[in-house]
Amino acid sequence: MAIAKKISDFMERSSWIRKMFEEGAALKAQYGVDQVCDFTLGNPDVAAPNAVAEELVKIIHEPAHLKHGYMPNAGYPETLSAIAGFLENEQQVAVNPQGVVMTSGAGGALNVILKAILNPGDEVITPSPFFVEYNFYADNHGGVLRAIPPIEGFALDLEAIGAAINKKTAAVIINSPNNPSGVVFSAEQIADLGQLLTEKSAEMGRVIYLISDEPYRKLVYDGLVVPPIFPVYRNSVIANSYSKELSLAGERIGFLALHPDADDFTQLANGFVFANRVLGFVNAPGLMQRLVARLQGVTVDVSIYQRKRDILYQGLVEAGFKLSKPQGAFYLFPRSPLADDVEFVRELQHYRILAVPGSGFSGPGFFRLAYCVDDTTIERSLPIFKEVGKKFC
Amino acid sequence: MAIAKKISDFMERSSWIRKMFEEGAALKAQYGVDQVCDFTLGNPDVAAPNAVAEELVKIIHEPAHLKHGYMPNAGYPETLSAIAGFLENEQQVAVNPQGVVMTSGAGGALNVILKAILNPGDEVITPSPFFVEYNFYADNHGGVLRAIPPIEGFALDLEAIGAAINKKTAAVIINSPNNPSGVVFSAEQIADLGQLLTEKSAEMGRVIYLISDEPYRKLVYDGLVVPPIFPVYRNSVIANSYSKELSLAGERIGFLALHPDADDFTQLANGFVFANRVLGFVNAPGLMQRLVARLQGVTVDVSIYQRKRDILYQGLVEAGFKLSKPQGAFYLFPRSPLADDVEFVRELQHYRILAVPGSGFSGPGFFRLAYCVDDTTIERSLPIFKEVGKKFC
Repeated sequence: MAIAKKISDFMERSSWIRKMFEEGAALKAQYGVDQVCDFTLGNPDVAAPNAVAEELVKIIHEPAHLKHGYMPNAGYPETLSAIAGFLENEQQVAVNPQGVVMTSGAGGALNVILKAILNPGDEVITPSPFFVEYNFYADNHGGVLRAIPPIEGFALDLEAIGAAINKKTAAVIINSPNNPSGVVFSAEQIADLGQLLTEKSAEMGRVIYLISDEPYRKLVYDGLVVPPIFPVYRNSVIANSYSKELSLAGERIGFLALHPDADDFTQLANGFVFANRVLGFVNAPGLMQRLVARLQGVTVDVSIYQRKRDILYQGLVEAGFKLSKPQGAFYLFPRSPLADDVEFVRELQHYRILAVPGSGFSGPGFFRLAYCVDDTTIERSLPIFKEVGKKFC
Repeated sequence: MAIAKKISDFMERSSWIRKMFEEGAALKAQYGVDQVCDFTLGNPDVAAPNAVAEELVKIIHEPAHLKHGYMPNAGYPETLSAIAGFLENEQQVAVNPQGVVMTSGAGGALNVILKAILNPGDEVITPSPFFVEYNFYADNHGGVLRAIPPIEGFALDLEAIGAAINKKTAAVIINSPNNPSGVVFSAEQIADLGQLLTEKSAEMGRVIYLISDEPYRKLVYDGLVVPPIFPVYRNSVIANSYSKELSLAGERIGFLALHPDADDFTQLANGFVFANRVLGFVNAPGLMQRLVARLQGVTVDVSIYQRKRDILYQGLVEAGFKLSKPQGAFYLFPRSPLADDVEFVRELQHYRILAVPGSGFSGPGFFRLAYCVDDTTIERSLPIFKEVGKKFC
């Protein structure tokens, strides 16, 4: 066999998802792209703010020696400072730029964090439903992901998390606003989680890190603010990216930020920089680092996503689907009218609607619709969902 | 302990290098940056070609839907095609764009390749001296690097490579032009290596991949051309980057290219794309992908490096150092006048010259000077090397 056995197994196991994507692509080829409503991809459809192009051109025209050369592996000092300054306000904690590392998006940040903290066989706990890549990210670095089953409303099941923690637990990853559910964990739940991890770290005699994966932090609606994690737990790390808030997903720019009062702060921060280097990232893309240093606090027009959410949510409710109105991100996660969500998503394909089964996120019995698509797709889908609802709901 | 034991050990073991860098930084702080000749960093000092800024501005101004969004994980199809087209000429083999994956530089490419092919305990062979990161890259994915001791002239020791190959050997990495020696392996040696790997693959009953790490391919002097690897061995993969040839080191843009006739071509190419995704790279930075699609064949002014090489080489020879004139890359690798190269590099620090001991590259008894620095540094160093030569050579 040409490829590593594990990679082959992984690819085999996820082949059903790939097959679905291929079937979707075949539908588009057969009927035309505009005859298929594709809700599968979390690729932001809202254009980057004008400031992105303006600042990029400015940076390119500015005289600078070796503008595109290597910088320290952690990133440009001015970028780290800009982010630390912004986070200080957001997290209500004085953030140390020495604990900030620029990364290849939040996906890069999570790999760097896990590489730096996991010993072989260590466990990483995450509540379901969750971004399926977490499985691979933990495995990449010798760890094992332990998923907590979903509960009503996809809130944090603190009891189950507490019961799952053991001497091998290195970290808990939370993702709020959540992909795929769109749920934002409440300030109270976050505080309770901090309390739980403080107690469990003491009980287990090891630091259990809280990793907060927050690429959707700025995409929240109805005036909501995502509760910060730094005030509730010292041994915490933020993984974030500008993929969604500045629509820069393909540019791979994000960061990690370590709590300034984390145990062994300097050693851990150095470990992150080392991991960023040896994993082959070396540093986050330089031009984008310079860009985001200037765009702290700038965000895409979130009202566009809110409107898309409202229209699709309303349409699904009227069609008879059962779902809660998510407070953030750009996903709806309705209950599948059929017990088997994979079967239901196949049924949807017959109506030329493409979705992802909740099973793909450890959330069986649901399906995910990414509404970061153009309005036409949403509008075209509404009568179809009505028809589907009549038959299945 | 806050960080993973292995990471802590790695950092501890390389702490002497870090300490040297810190001592160098202290010297600069004490005497002023322009009073220290720093030859430690492989950060290209030649400005990117004007076409880089021109094309970037054009791309930024071009209307395009979701210009910075996700593209296929392998990269933009037009970029993959442009590279395949260029490689076809360079490698004298018709290259399939399906075997090209855009990566975060050559470092990203090597990690993606090793992730996709290594089973636990697999060995990766490389001739010394070599880029020290190879150790980490192999280890990241459960492999073990096996270094072949250096021979006279730093040529390929085919006998030793053949003797080192066993049933656990998954790949051989070559780096030509070489960091740190600047050596370019001859066409004859490359052909012999291809022949050896063909025979050994048959003998061991497994494919042994040839991985050619070629970020310095375009930086060759005196009219030399680096011999292509595709004509000599089917199961080969190129790892390359635009870091050096376009002075884009900080932008993290490179690619891997699989030989079109490699065994299980499609499975392996898919494995690379999968590895690129799950390692958290997701895709190479999008804007830079668009850029390099338009700059195939464009290279920094190589004559600038050639001139720097000539001046520093000549100065070292006149000072009494023993070294060969490298044909490529931007490093000189003279023999250390003291048996202990680490001790000699410490001596150089007293003269405010910063170098890296050959021991850091598995090339003890030598030291590396990166001449990708400004002319002033080189000129200032010449009388100092003369003084050092008088004392030590």
